[in-house]
Amino acid sequence: MREIEGYLEEKAKTVEHHLAAYLKDIPGTLGESMNYSLLAGGKRLRPILVLAAADALGGSEEAALPFACAIEMIHTYSLIHDDLPAMDDDDFRRGSLTNHKVYGEAMAILAGDALLTKAFGVMAEGALNTGLDGKAALRLIQECAARVGAEGMVGGQVKDIEAEGRAVSLKELHDIHRSKTGDLITFSVRAGAIVAGACAKELEALTGYAERLGLAFQIGDDVLNVIGDRDKMGKPVGSDVEKKKSTYAALQGLDVSKKQVRTLVEEAKNLVSSVEGIRPDYLLGIADYLLDRER
Amino acid sequence: MREIEGYLEEKAKTVEHHLAAYLKDIPGTLGESMNYSLLAGGKRLRPILVLAAADALGGSEEAALPFACAIEMIHTYSLIHDDLPAMDDDDFRRGSLTNHKVYGEAMAILAGDALLTKAFGVMAEGALNTGLDGKAALRLIQECAARVGAEGMVGGQVKDIEAEGRAVSLKELHDIHRSKTGDLITFSVRAGAIVAGACAKELEALTGYAERLGLAFQIGDDVLNVIGDRDKMGKPVGSDVEKKKSTYAALQGLDVSKKQVRTLVEEAKNLVSSVEGIRPDYLLGIADYLLDRER
Repeated sequence: MREIEGYLEEKAKTVEHHLAAYLKDIPGTLGESMNYSLLAGGKRLRPILVLAAADALGGSEEAALPFACAIEMIHTYSLIHDDLPAMDDDDFRRGSLTNHKVYGEAMAILAGDALLTKAFGVMAEGALNTGLDGKAALRLIQECAARVGAEGMVGGQVKDIEAEGRAVSLKELHDIHRSKTGDLITFSVRAGAIVAGACAKELEALTGYAERLGLAFQIGDDVLNVIGDRDKMGKPVGSDVEKKKSTYAALQGLDVSKKQVRTLVEEAKNLVSSVEGIRPDYLLGIADYLLDRER
Repeated sequence: MREIEGYLEEKAKTVEHHLAAYLKDIPGTLGESMNYSLLAGGKRLRPILVLAAADALGGSEEAALPFACAIEMIHTYSLIHDDLPAMDDDDFRRGSLTNHKVYGEAMAILAGDALLTKAFGVMAEGALNTGLDGKAALRLIQECAARVGAEGMVGGQVKDIEAEGRAVSLKELHDIHRSKTGDLITFSVRAGAIVAGACAKELEALTGYAERLGLAFQIGDDVLNVIGDRDKMGKPVGSDVEKKKSTYAALQGLDVSKKQVRTLVEEAKNLVSSVEGIRPDYLLGIADYLLDRER
């Protein structure tokens, strides 16, 4: 595991360096508020997936980085808005106060809006600067909007809110998470792959890898929420139960959930190992690392 | 004035028809909430400016329409978020209940997020479908993000909030409005012009037109807030005074403000009348129509 941990650490640093550069000229409290959440740490799983997918196809890191950073901005905006009193009403995130607890609700809403907006600007600018094919870049921006908007992440958040406090089927839970968290993870891998010029077969395998990884990640999160310790999660253990949220752990039990995570990770690894053009080392490492979180 | 009114009415209908089509597949309460605000009427000034600028250069309406619709989505998202309790806390907009009064705060935040996201998807998709040059389209998306994000509209909203309840200089007020409302109006005209293939000289004149129009529009709004009637504004007269908001009317008096609106509109008209490649009729009509609001 040592090699992948070194890779993850190095790439998280690269991403954070670029994220900070993108925000450095935004003045005042808005800039502070955006920086506070964007540079609050975290695994940087999504941007690293962009870089790892591009690398797996021999693509340039320079071309992948703007998409990696944009995706992290979108992930961060979604966390800021999800934490708001009108939504999940969370005071802590990764062990620190949430954005609105520090900067107030108005600034948190606006910081989220500005991060989401910036993400699209960063993708367009990045594509122009690195000479990515115009049509490919526009298709990526279009796919991004679909996967994080009403038909994707935002739609999933709505479904999640509407499901709170009532019984939810496993099928419904799948559907919620596929859009709420899965779509952005899938887009991360696809963006890296497309920037690196993936052929149809490579893109299909990498998409399958991402879909399984996203689901494994969500089920793993549910499991950790039940059995994990507070330090690992940065939020109180058992908070899902407290909020009466439907979870995989609650719906199908811990043992089935853990087994499912293992199966999904195996499937994901097999998919990227079976296509000749893909150099899967880091993608395999990331999948294993994910599996290892629970131990 | 009859001709321009006919034009405005016709183009508003065209825009609304396309806006409805863009949202038709978004299901459930999120779709309803997005539709509620996006199709709540209004002058459709910004999207009509996109179409009028494209038309002034002989550009195709088909290529301009996605940008027109995207800009109206962005304008609508900003209104939904601005009306939230944590921001301006407004119950009414254009005589109807604001989004969060109908759908609740969580849905209003998410509907705004989804509209902003959709706007970028619509621009990218539109550029692909109408065969707009890839680089030109990416530059437009980049400019849009800059003008409506932290450096533009969102930044202006932050400045506006931070200026509430304290004395503001005329220079500061200019700065607030240039970013809060001016940038999106300027982008509207520039998007139409760029889609139509404007040369540097045409783009410069049209940008100058838009900047003056945007400022005239804001000063005119301030004047109307003092002297207008409730039906015209859709919100209580004098609400700015009540909220202790700094306005042009308060800072420099009604007469100076009214005169300034007239001067700005004249300058705007002169700019677009002085460049050979621009057929300015509708742009002149829109400027006059704006001036006429106060009479």
